[in-house]
Amino acid sequence: MARAAQPPATIELAQVLDRGTTRAVALWLEVVPDPVEREEQIAALTPEHLRVLDGLLDAETGEELVSTLDPLAAGELLIGIGVPTAGLILNELNTDLAADILRELPPDDRETLLSAVPADQALVLRGLLSWPEHSSAAHMIPDVLTVEAQSTAAAAIDSVRSGAAHLRADSQSGGYVYVVDGNGRLGGVVAFRALVLAPADALVADLMDDDVLAVSPLDDPEKSARLLLDHRLLAIPVVDGERRILGIITADAAADIAEEEATEDAERQGGSQPLDVPYLRASPWLLWRKRVVWLLVLFVAEAYTSSVLQAFEDELEAVVVLAFFIPLLIGTGGNTGTQITSTLVRAMATGQVRLRNIGRVVVKELSTAGLIAVAMAGAGLIRAFTLGVGWQIMLVVSLSLAAIVLWAALIASILPLLLQKTRVDPAVVSAPMIATIVDGTGLLIYFLIAKALLPELAGL
Amino acid sequence: MARAAQPPATIELAQVLDRGTTRAVALWLEVVPDPVEREEQIAALTPEHLRVLDGLLDAETGEELVSTLDPLAAGELLIGIGVPTAGLILNELNTDLAADILRELPPDDRETLLSAVPADQALVLRGLLSWPEHSSAAHMIPDVLTVEAQSTAAAAIDSVRSGAAHLRADSQSGGYVYVVDGNGRLGGVVAFRALVLAPADALVADLMDDDVLAVSPLDDPEKSARLLLDHRLLAIPVVDGERRILGIITADAAADIAEEEATEDAERQGGSQPLDVPYLRASPWLLWRKRVVWLLVLFVAEAYTSSVLQAFEDELEAVVVLAFFIPLLIGTGGNTGTQITSTLVRAMATGQVRLRNIGRVVVKELSTAGLIAVAMAGAGLIRAFTLGVGWQIMLVVSLSLAAIVLWAALIASILPLLLQKTRVDPAVVSAPMIATIVDGTGLLIYFLIAKALLPELAGL
Repeated sequence: MARAAQPPATIELAQVLDRGTTRAVALWLEVVPDPVEREEQIAALTPEHLRVLDGLLDAETGEELVSTLDPLAAGELLIGIGVPTAGLILNELNTDLAADILRELPPDDRETLLSAVPADQALVLRGLLSWPEHSSAAHMIPDVLTVEAQSTAAAAIDSVRSGAAHLRADSQSGGYVYVVDGNGRLGGVVAFRALVLAPADALVADLMDDDVLAVSPLDDPEKSARLLLDHRLLAIPVVDGERRILGIITADAAADIAEEEATEDAERQGGSQPLDVPYLRASPWLLWRKRVVWLLVLFVAEAYTSSVLQAFEDELEAVVVLAFFIPLLIGTGGNTGTQITSTLVRAMATGQVRLRNIGRVVVKELSTAGLIAVAMAGAGLIRAFTLGVGWQIMLVVSLSLAAIVLWAALIASILPLLLQKTRVDPAVVSAPMIATIVDGTGLLIYFLIAKALLPELAGL
Repeated sequence: MARAAQPPATIELAQVLDRGTTRAVALWLEVVPDPVEREEQIAALTPEHLRVLDGLLDAETGEELVSTLDPLAAGELLIGIGVPTAGLILNELNTDLAADILRELPPDDRETLLSAVPADQALVLRGLLSWPEHSSAAHMIPDVLTVEAQSTAAAAIDSVRSGAAHLRADSQSGGYVYVVDGNGRLGGVVAFRALVLAPADALVADLMDDDVLAVSPLDDPEKSARLLLDHRLLAIPVVDGERRILGIITADAAADIAEEEATEDAERQGGSQPLDVPYLRASPWLLWRKRVVWLLVLFVAEAYTSSVLQAFEDELEAVVVLAFFIPLLIGTGGNTGTQITSTLVRAMATGQVRLRNIGRVVVKELSTAGLIAVAMAGAGLIRAFTLGVGWQIMLVVSLSLAAIVLWAALIASILPLLLQKTRVDPAVVSAPMIATIVDGTGLLIYFLIAKALLPELAGL
């Protein structure tokens, strides 16, 4: 930040509240723009401090504060400062943010706050809360500016002006005005600025773009967000089956949705279930619950490796040196597979790779794996040589590495695409899952090659 | 999408071009909104088809097409259709997008296209291209609407109206107008709509918000994007040392930056270097280059496991059964560590966890690991029992699992935070890296516990 050029001494909110002036709170908001730092300082406040804060926040500074917080923290703050101020702030917030916050609260607290919001806005919020959480409609703001195609620019501005009185003051409409017909059906879009800059008697029909993308209320919010971001729009309308506008999703909400998706995918890729809460708010019990199921599933799957090794017990006893390379071989297989799935799963999440690309993906990955196999076979030869294990073991290790790399690449490139076909999120193909699959099968490959090449094992 | 309710038969661009009408191209844009599908169909065009396309694209449809494509694909298309049309389209595009596309092209092609853009816009583009690629300034659009604080609303609208004539038609300013003093220094921000809706004689100073966040041109673009997204702004100004506005970063550009960061982090987390190109455009050679270095580094690190096993060769020969559990034990350690780093690294990337939280993180993770250790020790006991290895080995396996889980948790929770302290991107603490670190040390733990508890190994 520009203003961080000479870093200001941080101000503690608790000290600001001891000062007890509205101006001091505004200054604090300016000096501490970081949401996480704000949350930490708020979490440290005593009930007395919260009462002081309640007296100092007006709708505007309250909105500026609450809109930056995580919905969970925002909900706690609103409950903490008490009903009248909380209602004012909720009324000032963008409607989608207010709904997000209310959604996170226990039903009792939600009702308490809703009762403090003006009736018309409470009705709108209840409408948003009635949509399923994982729907595009749950993320929209219902504040839409509409005009009719046959209006002149001047008449349209007047109509927007009177319509705007009913809308949130800071409604982030992205500056789009939507053009509807007499039945409220979406027919086009025009930039608010274009309306203002056009001659007063220009027809909206001539200013508008009639090719307007829209989404349905129950569409996957991640898909709607991606559509908006791909087309670099500042808003996308949500329309019902008759193409009547229910609301719009704005670019900042879409960025939020995409961020959350990326976080969930990152967590899944690490072999954990998504936390759904900010990390620092997650208790050890919650972390345990989200992690232990996958760990046990993977443990059971990995337990198979013990059976493979037990099956080759005679071979291991005859040539104990073979055991030295077990972690190296299966580790390399896991690493190769993880490199592929992490890149591929992300490319699928951002829409760059689809199921129909499976042929290209497999060919590309097997070609790459062929090149990598050569490098790893060479590295394996050198490592086995330095351990002084004899040329036959060297050959076994080297060939096994090459085979395991190719095998891991095949599994890792096909599995995420197959899962998507069965409508499972490919992000569940985590690094631990790939490593587990490759471990057992990699051992099989290793011992089969060893049996084929080592004369000592010929009779076993 | 709403319009996908009855999925339309997809239209091939090649067929559209055989039709040869502008209307058909517009229809294609409407039926095929998906950027990747557009890119694939464009990549399949012959030079003849590209010439036809050149004849059919005007500035507007060209902008609608090119703005959805990946910058690499967009650059190839512009070179493919030839200079005059490409210049028109580049002039129509948002300036930050045009600069992104030019940045990806070889210098010769870049000059060819720049020479086709009107001189004033070419100058602006060259200005953007002169900033380092990894700077906030490289992502800004220089089209900013400014007014002075002492203007009335009516005068401000007039000044914006005349200023707007020089700006891109679709400039996505987010509807903000910035308020500057006589020396061009940033003093506030006012919504364009607020200007229009205010009484004509209202002063801008009374309408504006004087607490405006700004960033410096050389600031890390990821930090600037996060600031904008955290505060749910539609644009954030880039200012020089004197707080004069150089341009703005818009919400859609910020979302793009955050998306790219998430993709790079996902690739790093898989133990690969970021590709920097869309997956389907990456050749096997490129994939090989981005992956093989880390694979070899990890191989060398993992090679240490062979030395550990060689050091315990006598123990292995005495109790070969110990080898059965090697993959299971080190696999579980790797999985435990990967779960932690994936969650933690993402929380750090989104700003939810900072270096100063290291104490809370370690306590939280070790508490969680304690709970997990109990579960895994139990699972290990059962698995060892089913293999019929005797109660002493059962005990060794079970205790080793618990110890390895705790050890992996300690490493995985500290390492990303320590790396951030040394200004290395914590995302390089990949799943493969954690697995590799835990493998060798986990084996040590296992054999030390075995030596302590197994009477057969007492003399070795």
